[in-house]
Amino acid sequence: MKQLNVDLGDRSYPIYIGDGIIEQIGSYFAKHQISSRSPIMVITDDNVASLHLKKVTTHLLESGYKVVEYIVPAGEMSKSLSVLEQIIGKALDAGLDRTSTIIALGGGVVGDLAGFVAASFMRGVKFVQIPTTILAHDSSVGGKVAVNHPKAKNIIGAFHQPQIVLYDTSTLKTLPEREIKAGLSEMIKHGLIWDAEFSKWIDENAEKLLSLDAEALEYGLYNGCKIKSHVVSEDEREHGLRAILNFGHTIGHALEAVAHYNQLLHGEAIAIGMVGAAKLSVRLGYPERIYTETKAAMKKYGLPIQIPGHLDIDEIMKAMLHDKKFKEGKVVFTILKDIGEAHIQSGISIDLIREIVEELRWEE
Amino acid sequence: MKQLNVDLGDRSYPIYIGDGIIEQIGSYFAKHQISSRSPIMVITDDNVASLHLKKVTTHLLESGYKVVEYIVPAGEMSKSLSVLEQIIGKALDAGLDRTSTIIALGGGVVGDLAGFVAASFMRGVKFVQIPTTILAHDSSVGGKVAVNHPKAKNIIGAFHQPQIVLYDTSTLKTLPEREIKAGLSEMIKHGLIWDAEFSKWIDENAEKLLSLDAEALEYGLYNGCKIKSHVVSEDEREHGLRAILNFGHTIGHALEAVAHYNQLLHGEAIAIGMVGAAKLSVRLGYPERIYTETKAAMKKYGLPIQIPGHLDIDEIMKAMLHDKKFKEGKVVFTILKDIGEAHIQSGISIDLIREIVEELRWEE
Ligand SMILES: NC(=O)c1ccc[n+]([C@@H]2O[C@H](COP(=O)([O-])OP(=O)(O)OC[C@H]3O[C@@H](n4cnc5c(N)ncnc54)[C@H](O)[C@@H]3O)[C@@H](O)[C@H]2O)c1
Ligand SMILES: NC(=O)c1ccc[n+]([C@@H]2O[C@H](COP(=O)([O-])OP(=O)(O)OC[C@H]3O[C@@H](n4cnc5c(N)ncnc54)[C@H](O)[C@@H]3O)[C@@H](O)[C@H]2O)c1
Ligand SMILES: [Zn+2]
Ligand SMILES: [Zn+2]
Repeated sequence: MKQLNVDLGDRSYPIYIGDGIIEQIGSYFAKHQISSRSPIMVITDDNVASLHLKKVTTHLLESGYKVVEYIVPAGEMSKSLSVLEQIIGKALDAGLDRTSTIIALGGGVVGDLAGFVAASFMRGVKFVQIPTTILAHDSSVGGKVAVNHPKAKNIIGAFHQPQIVLYDTSTLKTLPEREIKAGLSEMIKHGLIWDAEFSKWIDENAEKLLSLDAEALEYGLYNGCKIKSHVVSEDEREHGLRAILNFGHTIGHALEAVAHYNQLLHGEAIAIGMVGAAKLSVRLGYPERIYTETKAAMKKYGLPIQIPGHLDIDEIMKAMLHDKKFKEGKVVFTILKDIGEAHIQSGISIDLIREIVEELRWEE
Repeated sequence: MKQLNVDLGDRSYPIYIGDGIIEQIGSYFAKHQISSRSPIMVITDDNVASLHLKKVTTHLLESGYKVVEYIVPAGEMSKSLSVLEQIIGKALDAGLDRTSTIIALGGGVVGDLAGFVAASFMRGVKFVQIPTTILAHDSSVGGKVAVNHPKAKNIIGAFHQPQIVLYDTSTLKTLPEREIKAGLSEMIKHGLIWDAEFSKWIDENAEKLLSLDAEALEYGLYNGCKIKSHVVSEDEREHGLRAILNFGHTIGHALEAVAHYNQLLHGEAIAIGMVGAAKLSVRLGYPERIYTETKAAMKKYGLPIQIPGHLDIDEIMKAMLHDKKFKEGKVVFTILKDIGEAHIQSGISIDLIREIVEELRWEE
């Protein structure tokens, strides 16, 4: 079992990572001042509910908590204001109040949704994350919570830090293979932007990580969370440094949007985006190995590197120019100066970006 | 013109109160870092739009701002998630981004709604309040913003402090008489809970305030805001002291709910509630004058002191017991130890409260 502290002044919190943590959920809750006086609510999706909810609820009931369950349909569509309103209706009916805690049991979708419920219900109640995907090592750290607007993703939200994150690696065993790879894509990103040594370790341990070897997972998730939390501690509200976490995301988000959020997983889209951003880095004069190693990592982990043929380049460029990271027609991009060293570069020409996007169509 | 500072560390902000402030809106905005690079949005209701929007927009355009207007129907129904979603849709279409500012032009309804838009749009953008009701001297200070859930008022929200509050007393001249009185009810409250001298001044200046004498209004609003901001500075997130602002509100909220939020204005409901809380204070052993003076103030200002005959006492008690200020069957109540000195008392018997509510039915 590994423990990590996210350092945010009076909003600091610990992340526990290890096999079987849910069995001890009662003592973690007691230790971190989760009150059992008022009911608590566990929000999850229907996939995760059938696999892991019973275990969580049983342990909580045994520890004296009054537990209210709320199950949303799996998938991005549940990150909506109307689902939020329904959840809050149930919370009111069940007697939740200002001393209640909201628990997210699931991946990034459930984490973002439940987090915004916790941020806005009675203007903010306590929040606990129990991530069940590998991608959630990213989404459960940093306090960004949100729902989607029909016109844009993650556009209605808050910064709301959890009280604790309980990362039970045993829940990951039920993940579909495609979700495993897509989750590891963010772990690769964390190595690339911050820690060359960790990048090397990820390269050497692909087989172990892909087969969910308990020890490798614990180490990899710990380091991924550590890098994310380090960046977030320095810049909680994304005034500067935090933007390096967007490595691969400018192109990635555009791909997701043009593919209507139902053909590419987030981790897959950013894998292609990272290859693009690595290409750009080299084109801007940084070492060739940035590109070769980034691409090699994606291939080793079975992640896509090529923009699917049916996605229109004009559409992708249009989606990218709508992205909030583009200011006054000037293009800001997170690139690498080397493996393990990210950099936010402004004033990049849109023509150069377009060239790279066109090349990604034929990447292999 | 009077200026006041709300002291909240790095979230501190100034309130400007005076006649004709809107004419200088451009320079206030410039002075307080409201960027003109991205469009800004003015949210108001249809009553206020027809009376005061043109003036605001014109001055902003003249000062070089790109202005997007959003007009909601007047009334509590507009404080909803679906209105919020529509506003954010328009904001996206109009190209608002993270550097944009949301402006509330109106009373507490518009302030609460626009404030929650500002708190949640892109996880938080800048916010300016331009209050146009007397009641808003209360609602525009303190950073509580929210929309309603069909099952409960103000239950989905945030703490989001404005960048500046511009209180132009000239806008108040168009207020209906009933709204003037209801707004002054909160001013009376601020005197009663905090400042015996201000209470006395309010008593002596009823005629001036009710006729919107410019100088008296400026002084009264300034002091009301000052008291509220003082309490809020000490306890931004309502862990303790801030609860004294609830004086009159426990009974008041129950009356509003049982009257379906369409028969009693908020200020009217809390006027009755304050008489009840003053009665309770005396019953608990504090000086008789608390009751006589509170009641005299309400009468002088033409505010109601009696529970309307058609409201059912059982319903009122039920609504009150649902109120979040009641914990574990124990009743917590904000009372007065004397004029100008509020106190939060716990462990009050529900029977005593019921007796007082029954008496309020016959109060005269
Ligand atoms: N807040 C942040 O900082 C942040 C960062 C990155 C991504 N995100 C958000 O995260 C979301 C994506 O997260 P995700 O990839 O975890 O998606 P997800 O929550 O949709 O989970 C992916 C799929 O795996 C299923 N699943 C989850 N746990 C499982 C388990 N243990 N066994 C079997 N199936 C399981 C889910 O039901 C779902 O079908 C997006 O909405 C994205 O916007 C947020
Ligand atoms: N956030 C807080 O701390 C806080 C505190 C108290 C009350 N509130 C909220 O405030 C709301 C009540 O505020 P309110 O009384 O200002 O209500 P309001 O905003 O509905 O305004 C009352 C009426 O006056 C009209 N109006 C506003 N300005 C006018 C003007 N200058 N001339 C003519 N008509 C005008 C409005 O259109 C409306 O019909 C409630 O929703 C309550 O929950 C919030
Ligand atoms: Zn991501
Ligand atoms: Zn009030």
